[in-house]
Amino acid sequence: MSRFLAPQFQKLEAYTPGEQPQDMQYIKLNTNESPYPPAPSVVAAMTAGEVELLRLYSDPTAKNLKEKLAGLYGVTPENVFVSNGSDEVLNFAFMAFGSKGVVFPEISYGFYAVYADLYALEAEKIPLKPDFSIAYRDYCGKNKMVVIANPNAPTGMRIPVSEIEEILKTNPDSLVLIDEAYVDFGGESCLPLIGKYDNLLVTRTFSKSRCLAGGRLGYAFASSAIIADLEKIKYSTNPYNINRMTLLLGEKTVEAEEYYQEKCAEIIQTRAWTARQLEELGFTVLPSQTNFLFAKTDKMDGGELYNALKQQGILVRHFSDPKIAQYNRITIGTPEQMARFVEIVHQILAAM
Amino acid sequence: MSRFLAPQFQKLEAYTPGEQPQDMQYIKLNTNESPYPPAPSVVAAMTAGEVELLRLYSDPTAKNLKEKLAGLYGVTPENVFVSNGSDEVLNFAFMAFGSKGVVFPEISYGFYAVYADLYALEAEKIPLKPDFSIAYRDYCGKNKMVVIANPNAPTGMRIPVSEIEEILKTNPDSLVLIDEAYVDFGGESCLPLIGKYDNLLVTRTFSKSRCLAGGRLGYAFASSAIIADLEKIKYSTNPYNINRMTLLLGEKTVEAEEYYQEKCAEIIQTRAWTARQLEELGFTVLPSQTNFLFAKTDKMDGGELYNALKQQGILVRHFSDPKIAQYNRITIGTPEQMARFVEIVHQILAAM
Repeated sequence: MSRFLAPQFQKLEAYTPGEQPQDMQYIKLNTNESPYPPAPSVVAAMTAGEVELLRLYSDPTAKNLKEKLAGLYGVTPENVFVSNGSDEVLNFAFMAFGSKGVVFPEISYGFYAVYADLYALEAEKIPLKPDFSIAYRDYCGKNKMVVIANPNAPTGMRIPVSEIEEILKTNPDSLVLIDEAYVDFGGESCLPLIGKYDNLLVTRTFSKSRCLAGGRLGYAFASSAIIADLEKIKYSTNPYNINRMTLLLGEKTVEAEEYYQEKCAEIIQTRAWTARQLEELGFTVLPSQTNFLFAKTDKMDGGELYNALKQQGILVRHFSDPKIAQYNRITIGTPEQMARFVEIVHQILAAM
Repeated sequence: MSRFLAPQFQKLEAYTPGEQPQDMQYIKLNTNESPYPPAPSVVAAMTAGEVELLRLYSDPTAKNLKEKLAGLYGVTPENVFVSNGSDEVLNFAFMAFGSKGVVFPEISYGFYAVYADLYALEAEKIPLKPDFSIAYRDYCGKNKMVVIANPNAPTGMRIPVSEIEEILKTNPDSLVLIDEAYVDFGGESCLPLIGKYDNLLVTRTFSKSRCLAGGRLGYAFASSAIIADLEKIKYSTNPYNINRMTLLLGEKTVEAEEYYQEKCAEIIQTRAWTARQLEELGFTVLPSQTNFLFAKTDKMDGGELYNALKQQGILVRHFSDPKIAQYNRITIGTPEQMARFVEIVHQILAAM
């Protein structure tokens, strides 16, 4: 820390991303990336001519990408925001809309608490129910910004849109942010509600279901007034927030919707297979609507299993929070990767 | 504006980037982009295999790129920060280090004032001297964060490193940010001072001399403590701030240093030629150490000339601030583009 850092950041604890060890080739099931490459038409779009055009700034309005997203999801471009990963939308939203305080589940995406700290927002963290589900009534009538990942991470569980609608109705004067990073793997989207509730902001990402984590592309839907506020923050921090290549690949991704629907269906199938195998090995597996499983075994501590898997070349994500330390979060890879994962888990348990 | 925007942002005026009109093909001399494409080795690096790898997150530590930059500039990787364009470093720096107030030239990069407003920092804007130079004594002993673009924009003029050293010495307890976006076109870098002054932060960009404006890549040099603070802000906002493609192309760009030195030399030559032509047409041209000229004619208002050029398919940048409204900022393009520009200026003046 330097002598110059502003007092309010001196005790800030930053977010810790999933590890990216370079010491060997791992089966990487730790950061919820897709095991599949982008669609062939997306790969083909990145020509030498496009790289030569990098001498020119990207379009700060992201006009083409917004139009394509609006077309696919049946909204107008004024209802769409695009960002350098969905973390950027979350960052802007906490900054812009959190001044009355913010409320979110105690077990959820770990970054929410970091954003609250960063902007010195009063943060209320609400425990999950014992079965790890979200009790929607806990978020009703809060008169604070509400942030809910749906489906939630790392549990993988979703709440119905009807319950989100209750949260929206009972917090009419504060923003309700629904983080739909994992919605394409079985969640129920509340996008249709943006026309009905002017306090709804829905965030999405190309990182999971669109196989583009390394491209950094997030997006969001809301009333045009909320989108205009997000644009104002963007134009006051980094107007050219998305590079030309990612804008182009994002457009091509929207055009290749069928490919991504197929890949999501494959991941959902592989998830079901993996869950069954783990259950047969005695694991408790939470009901997932995402591209990962959250699972524990009574035979072994979560951290121990994480370490044993890592030694065998398989990376999963373990969280040290005692409430979930028994569990591991396992990204769904290809069928071959998951067969190998199950085999290794079997060996680890058998060797005990 | 929505009903939910925090009070402190309701009157915020965002930055206005240079226009990107799509109605016709312009000779684009308005946003200080390079007229040259990235080096052939950079273009060749963007293979289909690399696009397929976009399914994986980028390296949030940017280890390879930091090592290459450190090697080229003779510092250690701990002295290097990399960012999603240099606007992002500026944004983080104002956020992290501006709490005691900030001072910058009244005529400079327009974003400084926006960042100060965004973070509600007390901002002191110091007028330039009548010849548009920066009087370094005005910035000595301020005990606030000092921000100076060197060379300055839109004037194009530089101040000597010896004067920056005086500013550093006389503000020992506050950060001095030197924005070297244009340094490769004839400026004098104060990078060698980072070992001597722990309050110095030097920011740079790949957008101008590295022909990569659309890739979005900025970097900065400072003491390891200041870099650690910037990393903390990054990991509290957007850890994967740079996409995989840009990280890779950034590394390849550092390796192709010779190509970029040549292109800078060409731009400096074209700048000298263009300045001479404008002077022969009666223009006042400020002494530029950048990839643009700042010039005025007594025969015509700056806004009028801007409009007349635009009608003829040439875009330059005009600022409405009365102190500089007589001028236009003209990016240096290829020799052919500048010959065309001079020809059109000649025609416009002749037709009066």
